[in-house]
Amino acid sequence: MRQWTRRTPMALRAIFFDIDDTLFSTSTFAERARENSVDAMLGMGVRCGRDVMLRELEEVVQEFSSNYEHHYDKLLSRLPLEATIGLNTPLVVAAGVVGYHETKFRELSSYDDVNEVLRILSRTDLILGIISNGVTLKQMEKLIRLQAYRFINPTAIFISDHVGIGKPNPKLYRRALDRVGIAPSQAMYVGDHPVNDVDGAKAAGLVTVWNRREGKHLNLVGETSPDHVIFNFWDLLDVVQEAMGVTLPVEVQA
Amino acid sequence: MRQWTRRTPMALRAIFFDIDDTLFSTSTFAERARENSVDAMLGMGVRCGRDVMLRELEEVVQEFSSNYEHHYDKLLSRLPLEATIGLNTPLVVAAGVVGYHETKFRELSSYDDVNEVLRILSRTDLILGIISNGVTLKQMEKLIRLQAYRFINPTAIFISDHVGIGKPNPKLYRRALDRVGIAPSQAMYVGDHPVNDVDGAKAAGLVTVWNRREGKHLNLVGETSPDHVIFNFWDLLDVVQEAMGVTLPVEVQA
Repeated sequence: MRQWTRRTPMALRAIFFDIDDTLFSTSTFAERARENSVDAMLGMGVRCGRDVMLRELEEVVQEFSSNYEHHYDKLLSRLPLEATIGLNTPLVVAAGVVGYHETKFRELSSYDDVNEVLRILSRTDLILGIISNGVTLKQMEKLIRLQAYRFINPTAIFISDHVGIGKPNPKLYRRALDRVGIAPSQAMYVGDHPVNDVDGAKAAGLVTVWNRREGKHLNLVGETSPDHVIFNFWDLLDVVQEAMGVTLPVEVQA
Repeated sequence: MRQWTRRTPMALRAIFFDIDDTLFSTSTFAERARENSVDAMLGMGVRCGRDVMLRELEEVVQEFSSNYEHHYDKLLSRLPLEATIGLNTPLVVAAGVVGYHETKFRELSSYDDVNEVLRILSRTDLILGIISNGVTLKQMEKLIRLQAYRFINPTAIFISDHVGIGKPNPKLYRRALDRVGIAPSQAMYVGDHPVNDVDGAKAAGLVTVWNRREGKHLNLVGETSPDHVIFNFWDLLDVVQEAMGVTLPVEVQA
């Protein structure tokens, strides 16, 4: 048994991570995907300014949610009639979908430091898990494409859609901890959202880390203060080592 | 006006194509996609023989149709309990889905001769169109990924799902011809299925070409004899030129 687990029975035993805007830049990816989709649709002959298309698409995503299935149909139906007259609309939609998927295939990747730090943490006794809102298949696909799944304990992945409980409901966090069999105070949660992630995890009794790196929630203020704030995953490694007293593999200590 | 259109008012004015096993080898693609999916799921720790998985997956596709959305869930639920015990099933399913999509991204391509012959035909006065059974978005996506859409008239694409009529119902062929504004005898249909394609198109009055190249229907016999049989698209070019009297661009005649 490792030294730190002897020192205190309430030492850190698990870290759970959010996915979007924590393991990768959702915002950067979404922007690239939207650009590639719009360019593909323009390539099919849509008569409309690129900026107008991009703005409309952004509105569609806001109004119908990012998990809605028919963004491009809606986008085309919002444009002036002249924009698509004489075109084969389903073919244009398919071009948008292909543009999106090609972005996902080529450009969905973790922040450089994320997989490296996950790899280091996976060599400790810590359980690495995921607690995320979203559609099960989509979130699992992200873990696979980001390569993060290689460092995550597959039995410690909890997606709201699958569990039936969504953030910021602290029940989602408690359910995860029950399933993994550890006390809340033995677990840390890392996420970018001051309410869903920090307030929710804190209400369930976890140590909270606000990943204040990028995305929409950089200036949002929640009800509770996070226990730690990080700007990248090297910061997280410092928190784990210095504040939580976890002994890291020798290669990192050196 | 071109010479051949003067010669007879009923000369060939349009060629409509099937997609699957006509523009590309559906069978070869499906086999590769299934292998890649199964290998990805085995990589996630499924304890099962590769051959057993492949056989089960083939059965699932047969029993639930190729357009069913949950093949991999069904596959895993059919395996012995020991195969997936302790694994995160949704993660395994996602690995299968990613394996399938990566195949689609990397390996979906036309037969070598298909795009070359379509390119040549697109330089004549012939209207090139599509009449296909299937899910609209999926079929459109195939036309885009195969690059065939570049040679097809976008207003001459008819997918059963979108039209609301499916092969072999001759109404689908008649509807397409009405929309394009030509008589049945002025159109040719090229497909691999003796019943859906040859009998259906013949019943609507089109000139029929059986693309007897690959796939499941090589030895199926329909009620009518196709007007022409081809084994690749160079054969089609011969039919168009010699039997239908179409003048091809100079580069090909030479």
